[in-house]
Amino acid sequence: MNFASDNTAGIAPEILQALVAANDGYALGYGNDDLTRSVERRLGEIFERDVAVFLVPTGTAANALALAHFSPPWGAVFAHAEAHIMTDECGAPEFFGGGLKLVGLPGVGCKLAPETLAAALAQYSGHAPHQVVPAALSLTQASEAGTIYRADEIAALARLAHARGMAVHMDGARFANALTRLNASAADITWRSGVDVLSFGATKGGAMAAEAVVFFDPAKAEHMGERRKRAGHLLSKHRFVSAQFQAFLADDCWLRLARHANAMADRLASGLAAAGHAPVWPVEANLVFVILPKAVEGRLKAAGARYYVRSSDSLPDGVALGPDELLVRLVASFSTRDADVDRFVELAAKA
Amino acid sequence: MNFASDNTAGIAPEILQALVAANDGYALGYGNDDLTRSVERRLGEIFERDVAVFLVPTGTAANALALAHFSPPWGAVFAHAEAHIMTDECGAPEFFGGGLKLVGLPGVGCKLAPETLAAALAQYSGHAPHQVVPAALSLTQASEAGTIYRADEIAALARLAHARGMAVHMDGARFANALTRLNASAADITWRSGVDVLSFGATKGGAMAAEAVVFFDPAKAEHMGERRKRAGHLLSKHRFVSAQFQAFLADDCWLRLARHANAMADRLASGLAAAGHAPVWPVEANLVFVILPKAVEGRLKAAGARYYVRSSDSLPDGVALGPDELLVRLVASFSTRDADVDRFVELAAKA
Amino acid sequence: MNFASDNTAGIAPEILQALVAANDGYALGYGNDDLTRSVERRLGEIFERDVAVFLVPTGTAANALALAHFSPPWGAVFAHAEAHIMTDECGAPEFFGGGLKLVGLPGVGCKLAPETLAAALAQYSGHAPHQVVPAALSLTQASEAGTIYRADEIAALARLAHARGMAVHMDGARFANALTRLNASAADITWRSGVDVLSFGATKGGAMAAEAVVFFDPAKAEHMGERRKRAGHLLSKHRFVSAQFQAFLADDCWLRLARHANAMADRLASGLAAAGHAPVWPVEANLVFVILPKAVEGRLKAAGARYYVRSSDSLPDGVALGPDELLVRLVASFSTRDADVDRFVELAAKA
Amino acid sequence: MNFASDNTAGIAPEILQALVAANDGYALGYGNDDLTRSVERRLGEIFERDVAVFLVPTGTAANALALAHFSPPWGAVFAHAEAHIMTDECGAPEFFGGGLKLVGLPGVGCKLAPETLAAALAQYSGHAPHQVVPAALSLTQASEAGTIYRADEIAALARLAHARGMAVHMDGARFANALTRLNASAADITWRSGVDVLSFGATKGGAMAAEAVVFFDPAKAEHMGERRKRAGHLLSKHRFVSAQFQAFLADDCWLRLARHANAMADRLASGLAAAGHAPVWPVEANLVFVILPKAVEGRLKAAGARYYVRSSDSLPDGVALGPDELLVRLVASFSTRDADVDRFVELAAKA
Repeated sequence: MNFASDNTAGIAPEILQALVAANDGYALGYGNDDLTRSVERRLGEIFERDVAVFLVPTGTAANALALAHFSPPWGAVFAHAEAHIMTDECGAPEFFGGGLKLVGLPGVGCKLAPETLAAALAQYSGHAPHQVVPAALSLTQASEAGTIYRADEIAALARLAHARGMAVHMDGARFANALTRLNASAADITWRSGVDVLSFGATKGGAMAAEAVVFFDPAKAEHMGERRKRAGHLLSKHRFVSAQFQAFLADDCWLRLARHANAMADRLASGLAAAGHAPVWPVEANLVFVILPKAVEGRLKAAGARYYVRSSDSLPDGVALGPDELLVRLVASFSTRDADVDRFVELAAKA
Repeated sequence: MNFASDNTAGIAPEILQALVAANDGYALGYGNDDLTRSVERRLGEIFERDVAVFLVPTGTAANALALAHFSPPWGAVFAHAEAHIMTDECGAPEFFGGGLKLVGLPGVGCKLAPETLAAALAQYSGHAPHQVVPAALSLTQASEAGTIYRADEIAALARLAHARGMAVHMDGARFANALTRLNASAADITWRSGVDVLSFGATKGGAMAAEAVVFFDPAKAEHMGERRKRAGHLLSKHRFVSAQFQAFLADDCWLRLARHANAMADRLASGLAAAGHAPVWPVEANLVFVILPKAVEGRLKAAGARYYVRSSDSLPDGVALGPDELLVRLVASFSTRDADVDRFVELAAKA
Repeated sequence: MNFASDNTAGIAPEILQALVAANDGYALGYGNDDLTRSVERRLGEIFERDVAVFLVPTGTAANALALAHFSPPWGAVFAHAEAHIMTDECGAPEFFGGGLKLVGLPGVGCKLAPETLAAALAQYSGHAPHQVVPAALSLTQASEAGTIYRADEIAALARLAHARGMAVHMDGARFANALTRLNASAADITWRSGVDVLSFGATKGGAMAAEAVVFFDPAKAEHMGERRKRAGHLLSKHRFVSAQFQAFLADDCWLRLARHANAMADRLASGLAAAGHAPVWPVEANLVFVILPKAVEGRLKAAGARYYVRSSDSLPDGVALGPDELLVRLVASFSTRDADVDRFVELAAKA
Repeated sequence: MNFASDNTAGIAPEILQALVAANDGYALGYGNDDLTRSVERRLGEIFERDVAVFLVPTGTAANALALAHFSPPWGAVFAHAEAHIMTDECGAPEFFGGGLKLVGLPGVGCKLAPETLAAALAQYSGHAPHQVVPAALSLTQASEAGTIYRADEIAALARLAHARGMAVHMDGARFANALTRLNASAADITWRSGVDVLSFGATKGGAMAAEAVVFFDPAKAEHMGERRKRAGHLLSKHRFVSAQFQAFLADDCWLRLARHANAMADRLASGLAAAGHAPVWPVEANLVFVILPKAVEGRLKAAGARYYVRSSDSLPDGVALGPDELLVRLVASFSTRDADVDRFVELAAKA
């Protein structure tokens, strides 16, 4: 019953196999190999356009490199106050961005509403050069709450950002989980909706350590190679990060793995709801947030269930934690099994 | 005949097997797993003392994190002018170090002499606060030329550094290659000789992407965890970088792999010397630098040999490139085979 | 009727005279002159202890240098959300601090309450190394709202900060305005209440361009000289910034100038209150914030009054702007005259 | 007999008077005043084109802001190894530039030769993304040795830089001293020869603390306002830095002051040469470098002469310090008097 994080799962078999297969013979380092070229081509197919691709080993690196690339040091990056870049990357965007400023905004279910963004942007006007300059909007898809943005929601936010000359970044650590849930293509919910650069995650989805920074306008990627190298994120035996992506993207493996994780989250959600513990937010990806009585939570922990207790300022109106309750985050992954889900639900349901 | 880099080789079988084995079950992310603890203990055994260990995926990350940790932004880091941190990391130390300054010094065979360091340090005195402040010395072991520092050479340099309050960093991307050549322990050529922090490389030695920053005084590692995280170098599925190190360090695998690489370099060196192409520097690790007539070099290239042509300001007195000659760098690795070496030598020897 | 800023006033005559007098003969540059030594001594007297002093030309420099000195790049600096460092320095603390993070907190009248700080700090615990680390608290005295902290209020906040190992910084751009209002010594409201470093402003008080970073523990100022130089804030003809401070601090000139400015603010406040426009916050320094009907405001502007219209999230409970109202900030300075105050009040009072 | 630095002199009377005069009445802060506009216009006249101007209080700030503006963090800035930015600014360019790299080049008399630059640039090619990228060339006019670049020399260097996409920066801390010596206009030795941005110094020339960053293509100055503000270099009572420049540039005051300083240097040089101490470099600005026997130097010091003893790697071929000799730097300023020069020469001449 490990629901602690998508990171506690290992490597999906398809991807591990590809790593082993990639170990044959010699290959030039630093991305000058055929496997890397083929990953770039495959991403071009998936996104239905030429893209510039930079593979890195962590999501923090992908996010920070992308944001630093689109924001000057005096820039402001707007994101939800509970986004990963705000709370879990120890200031990486500020470091990579030479001291840029993150501006955290509220929003139920960790999603930003256009009105919220518009109101915030209105505060950044007419006070040059005393104030930082809006430079980028960062959206998380799926969000930290496991909710997702529809294409029209992204487009509405992106329009506001572009109108101010800002770039739109998408933190897609769980991009596959979002995509498989929507009746849309990868292109639809990225560049066709105004996304300029995507942190495309494979690690949480089943890879070992593989994330891609995808620029939808390759002309805007100039000197990203130097930026990545200088951050220590250009892998020398680069073929092995490419191999992970190759397998991840082959034969819709990434979507299959994500569908499984989402299905496990759904199973958790419906089981818990039936037991009187309805999730606080719609379960749209592989995350389930549920308020549990402390007594129930203690029973689950005692039974060996692994997960994190969280706090959040983004609960829906009318939802609040009682003094004897906890907010529990459950994460399903490609490797989550029915049996674990069912046992968890059963334990949570017991009177 | 691939002698381009230790990076063009793949993963040593022992290490690849460990990666596969580590994929069993769930493990907490970010280094909170048993495998990571065991690597830390193993490094303590190897270095005969308590150490603080931070695993990262690249050597550039290891070097830049270590140097930034020991140098303030107004610090100067002294190193050989042809060291990797000077010429091949696209300014990573400057970036991680908030704008620190690298000071490049000359030295035959890419090694620093104490007199050279002393003379350089003498220039940094009595001019505060207009001048940057000597903060660290970085030695490369084995050097970019494939030469190595003896324990007493390290100690002499470290004494000069410590007398100025500087830290001593060792770039050990090829530490194993140096160690196996010396009649000394890992402790002898590091902290017992005054090294404060080591970038201990496994990647070039046979791992996929695994380097360790090793602090010999754990008290000096405070907040290195935040520094690594903020740089995007804390791997989420951390067990897989630990697994590489575990296998690398188990049963002297690392030394065995290094001995093979060194032996292949020796075989190259003696073969080439016999053919009239004596290496320009002593071959002490897995690198061979040799001056070849352009005609010979063309023949080798035509035959499919892979290597890099280099230039260097560190040639010994009296050694110089003629107009029809090239300086060629040959790198042997754990996977280099006798047959390739012999064929290369044969081609180079042909009249 | 210029109430736009303390910056729109010129130089107080006493200080201008000192500048002229300091122009006699030669003096070593970069602070190696007698005038600078005497300012350091005088500040020691005023604060009743040995201090380390670094003079710089702007308040932004003073704040950013001080905060960067006490916060690592992965540090968090807590301050009121409307503090100058948060909104008016274009990210200077982030720049000087290598990407540190500013955390803005709410508080009526731009003052922080201990409960607010305690609650915020509680969010920064147990999540290392993913989260930035509380490093400093910055208090503004007098605040951007013209309110002031009493010694016991500072002490209560400082205790919370010190308990977390944080430093306490005071932005004293209007320190004199606060001090003259309190029945306390300069020492009482700084180091005796737990302040570690003060940005001691003279510019707004009547100097041309002169601010002092004052360390109450000189041992903690190590390498601040390099930090200042490297930021371009060590003036070459340094005697002229020292001369400003010398005159400012001589014969209680600084307190006299501040008392005048405060008195003018009081006169404005009582006049406006009598006219039905009571200030929204207590007028404790040289700033008056008042809500005016747009019609009144238009009349004032037409008559040539200069001031800024502001917005604020720190209004007291129950105070809000109506649709036909504006929040107006009026700043008095050493050079404000009764006649201008009275004319402004008269215009504001007209039915 | 103060020849220590141009910084040891005070403020020229014309400029001090202007400071006093500028103190009349109120003026908007931060450069939104008429005086600032008029300085911008005046600089446009002097340089015969539209320019963008940013006034700051120190030369270090001017240089670091300019270089950071034209170099990305992964950029390399080429300059003479003994340039002020290399040795006397405590890493300011690296700090402002987010960790850019300064590359020091040799050259007799602290001047760069085109061949030297070309050879250095040739080393930065074909190794992306491992190597920093040539971004700017910085020339010092007059140089640290008091030598000057002719227009054609600047143009030859600038052509090499521009061919590599680099910007050309001129550190003009002593620009006036150079200009008055040449039969050329300010435009000729700046933008007409390929200079993109100039640090135009007034401080050494007679101001209190006033330097201008002058962009010859205003379109390239975008967001320099934020950059300056964020560095703490936007003065609040900005009219006083503008007043200095206004007086400095009015009625050719700046050229008159520089001519005097140069004439005093000439007088020193010819006197010393007649006494057997010929300057080591041509005296082209207000600096005289001369090798003196230690005995002579001791006599001068005992008589109260102030100057600095220097070392340099840029002495002309065949010139070297004997064991009983010292290299002495003598700086003349707008305030240097004949009598002091003559007394110095007399003392140096005594057998």
